Amino acid sequence: MLTNTRTIRVQWGDCDPAGIVFYPRYFEWFDASTILLFEKATGLIKIKMLEKYDGAGLALLEARAVFKVASHYGEDIEMQTEITEFRRSTFFVKHTVRKAGTVALEGFETRLWTVRDADDPKRLKSGTMPAEIVDAFQRG
Amino acid sequence: MLTNTRTIRVQWGDCDPAGIVFYPRYFEWFDASTILLFEKATGLIKIKMLEKYDGAGLALLEARAVFKVASHYGEDIEMQTEITEFRRSTFFVKHTVRKAGTVALEGFETRLWTVRDADDPKRLKSGTMPAEIVDAFQRG
Amino acid sequence: MLTNTRTIRVQWGDCDPAGIVFYPRYFEWFDASTILLFEKATGLIKIKMLEKYDGAGLALLEARAVFKVASHYGEDIEMQTEITEFRRSTFFVKHTVRKAGTVALEGFETRLWTVRDADDPKRLKSGTMPAEIVDAFQRG
Amino acid sequence: MLTNTRTIRVQWGDCDPAGIVFYPRYFEWFDASTILLFEKATGLIKIKMLEKYDGAGLALLEARAVFKVASHYGEDIEMQTEITEFRRSTFFVKHTVRKAGTVALEGFETRLWTVRDADDPKRLKSGTMPAEIVDAFQRG
Repeated sequence: MLTNTRTIRVQWGDCDPAGIVFYPRYFEWFDASTILLFEKATGLIKIKMLEKYDGAGLALLEARAVFKVASHYGEDIEMQTEITEFRRSTFFVKHTVRKAGTVALEGFETRLWTVRDADDPKRLKSGTMPAEIVDAFQRG
Repeated sequence: MLTNTRTIRVQWGDCDPAGIVFYPRYFEWFDASTILLFEKATGLIKIKMLEKYDGAGLALLEARAVFKVASHYGEDIEMQTEITEFRRSTFFVKHTVRKAGTVALEGFETRLWTVRDADDPKRLKSGTMPAEIVDAFQRG
Repeated sequence: MLTNTRTIRVQWGDCDPAGIVFYPRYFEWFDASTILLFEKATGLIKIKMLEKYDGAGLALLEARAVFKVASHYGEDIEMQTEITEFRRSTFFVKHTVRKAGTVALEGFETRLWTVRDADDPKRLKSGTMPAEIVDAFQRG
Repeated sequence: MLTNTRTIRVQWGDCDPAGIVFYPRYFEWFDASTILLFEKATGLIKIKMLEKYDGAGLALLEARAVFKVASHYGEDIEMQTEITEFRRSTFFVKHTVRKAGTVALEGFETRLWTVRDADDPKRLKSGTMPAEIVDAFQRG
């Protein structure tokens, strides 16, 4: 399965008065990493991908993180992102964040491929994950 | 002229490792305060106001802040927002932030009332500030 | 058990290009709500509380959110926060976010009362949750 | 004079409901770029640099941005940062942000080298910018 790995330098403004990353930042980075992984799979930025495959969004059903080691300003962390399972409409994302080789935290997102409701274009409903996208992930 | 005053409790996550507000947060609060001031004037949230008056946005031309006293987690600051001048398309916003009565910082935004270009709806151009909105501000 | 309820107006800058709250914002609000709940219980801001009870922090072990209904700019959401269980060092926080009375999302944090290691003050270790604080929560 | 140039990919979560960068993000990037420039000059992260030179911070006196062209999710912007003048305690930072070679916005920060007050270590006062740091910038 395709993975995306990127290094994030922890900036001063990412940290709180305890000098460690303010935790919602990790979720910002998770969201961006998930999108970057789809870009890598499809060669398209999110908006273009949704247009091409008649999708409306990658709706978030659940997000979770398990924290092991704190990170501080000036440190580099490595975020590795992969999709652990595709179901019909739902898929599961895992983010593994390492600092100097050690797992610092793990993140998990459950997301849903949504499409516009033909009867009411303002409404979204779950769609079938396009096979072409699933294939692109599996080819790696 | 109409003004809007709101109290902001500085949260832990608003602050940096020095224990003071990470300065971009003030600009987040300026943006929200400017929008809240227009809501107060028109009785409409930004999206509804733009719809009603055929506007496309309150484009930012310039933003500036002058910092005098830092603020810390747990402190309350009072942000007072007013429009100091309306021109044809441009208007000038001033934010005065006080802590325990003392001016802690001042913010300034120059914004432009934009409309969609009839020849190309994807393009925005400067429009004439609706007189009804200017009146609502001046009535206070 | 003590609860804290607050209304959050969703601001323009809290939302993403889909016009809904960018999800890490909810975790920012969770963090602030947890701290506000401790303030309510102890009458002290976090820094003063930690000083008084020789604590070093409320370390986050796990954070999770389950999303049901999206929220948009201009909407008011109500965040209700409570501690569902205190163990010796660990405690469990639940945030219920309602929009017009309907549950829009739920958040969960597992946190640890940490203290400084006497042998190495730079290191933190789990401590025993101060009974006085637990009592304050239970008196509600 | 030393400059620092970095490319920033605009992420989905950096953008507002209009689909363009929510402007406080630029100030987050300015702050990080200023710090990265000092790292480049001194070979030290901010905290280590302040320790070595008995500094307390790079206090912000004024921040300003002039916006010309909006940026959208998926675009790459290039931020070039330089110090345009060093005075005794104060220095002036300029950030030029280009998109596909065109200037999209310019940012300006006025900052002050602060030191701890010997009579009251909790208080900060302006210090003299260390000559070694100024030299490092001028050697480029």
